[in-house]
Amino acid sequence: MEMLVVRSDAHRHHHCLELDGGALVDSWDTPVRAESVDRAVDAFGRFECIGPDPLDRGLIEAVHTSDYVVFLEEAYDRWVGAGHAGPCAMGFGWPGRGAKPRRPHDLLGQLGYHSFAADCSIGPGTWAAAVGSAALAQTAADRVADGVRSAFARCRPPGHHAMRDQFGGYCYLNNAAVAAQRLRRRGAGRVAILDVDYHHGNGTQDIFYDRDDILYCSIHCDPLAEFPFFFGHAEETGTGEGTGRNFNLPLPRGTTTDAWFEALEHALEWIEPSGCDHLVVSLGVDTFEADPISHFRLGCDAFAPMGERIAQLGLPTVFVLEGGYASDELGDNVVSVLHGFGSA
Amino acid sequence: MEMLVVRSDAHRHHHCLELDGGALVDSWDTPVRAESVDRAVDAFGRFECIGPDPLDRGLIEAVHTSDYVVFLEEAYDRWVGAGHAGPCAMGFGWPGRGAKPRRPHDLLGQLGYHSFAADCSIGPGTWAAAVGSAALAQTAADRVADGVRSAFARCRPPGHHAMRDQFGGYCYLNNAAVAAQRLRRRGAGRVAILDVDYHHGNGTQDIFYDRDDILYCSIHCDPLAEFPFFFGHAEETGTGEGTGRNFNLPLPRGTTTDAWFEALEHALEWIEPSGCDHLVVSLGVDTFEADPISHFRLGCDAFAPMGERIAQLGLPTVFVLEGGYASDELGDNVVSVLHGFGSA
Repeated sequence: MEMLVVRSDAHRHHHCLELDGGALVDSWDTPVRAESVDRAVDAFGRFECIGPDPLDRGLIEAVHTSDYVVFLEEAYDRWVGAGHAGPCAMGFGWPGRGAKPRRPHDLLGQLGYHSFAADCSIGPGTWAAAVGSAALAQTAADRVADGVRSAFARCRPPGHHAMRDQFGGYCYLNNAAVAAQRLRRRGAGRVAILDVDYHHGNGTQDIFYDRDDILYCSIHCDPLAEFPFFFGHAEETGTGEGTGRNFNLPLPRGTTTDAWFEALEHALEWIEPSGCDHLVVSLGVDTFEADPISHFRLGCDAFAPMGERIAQLGLPTVFVLEGGYASDELGDNVVSVLHGFGSA
Repeated sequence: MEMLVVRSDAHRHHHCLELDGGALVDSWDTPVRAESVDRAVDAFGRFECIGPDPLDRGLIEAVHTSDYVVFLEEAYDRWVGAGHAGPCAMGFGWPGRGAKPRRPHDLLGQLGYHSFAADCSIGPGTWAAAVGSAALAQTAADRVADGVRSAFARCRPPGHHAMRDQFGGYCYLNNAAVAAQRLRRRGAGRVAILDVDYHHGNGTQDIFYDRDDILYCSIHCDPLAEFPFFFGHAEETGTGEGTGRNFNLPLPRGTTTDAWFEALEHALEWIEPSGCDHLVVSLGVDTFEADPISHFRLGCDAFAPMGERIAQLGLPTVFVLEGGYASDELGDNVVSVLHGFGSA
């Protein structure tokens, strides 16, 4: 078997609004994205597909705070109870730069406290979808811990922007962090997370920034030019026990396939000697040249070689779906990475 | 003359959208607010009204950073140039809690970097209105420095939420800070700012937090329950040379006239021995019981005594208009404070 795919329909009822270009619009993260991947996986026909096991809540509370998890679970009902006009729970005020404030009691205050962006919001199906998405990552990690060479968690919503206790960037629970943490609990010695999404995975960086047992390495668009804007610089290298265990490779808008693969070499050279025995890949394919909200220039033919090259690390690997918004090609690009990896 | 009023029509073309209850709506800060005050002042007939002198740009750059001022000036044109869909410039991502990030190059990134709320945005008339509003505060301060006992700057947009380099809460340039700074430049020894708006003036606090020559004292709704949510706690007392020079009096939602006036006594007891020779009052009347977005319970009859009591400090005083959204009564409530002060 080339690849084990873990998927479910738990995402279907997650719809929300995002503030985009000064207008409130339907989120770019639509159910169509997951359907595109499912369709391409089915058409390819060489991956085994399974459903998830129930999520261990202790696992998400190992990478997020309990306060945050309870907040996410209850926010939509509190929003409805408060009689707000909008169909999704959204804050409107955030802590000022550098502030380390107390947590407000008020729901609107907590929505600001527990988020860093208004590009997503909390609808009626968001919590269930986030839990369902994290369950896919947990299950994929379990199967790899059981001895499967590689598994792909077809997550939606994505997770890599979700910080320890702040949502944003379409992400609520950090699926890659869940997978890495699960691998550690199941006996992995040290886990590397390689994030190839167009955007920096500020959430994953945040969660493991002071840890020595789970490393984070990301290739992404320079935050001076692109969301998440305030994280992802090369000088962010970890703190405390995690010093030197965080590696960011920001690239300019317009980065081509060749330049991107050069960065991938740097990333793999950094991961190789790190002593990691397991790998988690945050698989965003919004590096694709036709992605409607991103600005790298990787062609369709870049994705199979991406998988092949990552496979050369020779590590048991969990792939977790992150971004990618060109729905027509999304599924095929994802399958190309997985097939490239699986056939290498 | 009871009171000198400084006003202009520069505010008229400032309209913008705000994110409120998960919907994008017209801002509560409408031109109607200023018109309500102008009408009440004219009807009262006992204040002298003048227009502003041109704004000294160096003055706003003394209380805000140059980068921020240039950003505000250019943001709308850059927004239009970038072809965004919305009619007003709004960001969608903010620095995570506690982050002290580099300033992005990208406009959307800068909109997040230079703001802390999505309850206001930058429209075509915003910069001109903000400059016009600050000019009123400067002029009022000048007249008081010239020897007039008291002057009222009928500012719109308001200013007290505008931090050194972040907008939010309907505020872009901090008019009270401009007035206090101007008084200092014109020879005041030490200036007290008394903020009676329903909301904490996080911007004014931010600007003077480390200064010994301009003190900030605020009576407002507890930030755990109310915007700006992340500033305004009693334990915020200043830093460095400003240690002990910041005094917050947070009160619960539902605060009545009696409880509010008790807090005013504490505020005045704190200001009196401080050695200040001039006073700036951030005059928000959203403490009014019928204010549509606020939750204190002061009746119309509270406002004249408020002015009378403040007058007992015996200091040359600049009043600067902040919030108040019950447009029908806004003007009368403002005039009551000014008349209470002027007749005392």
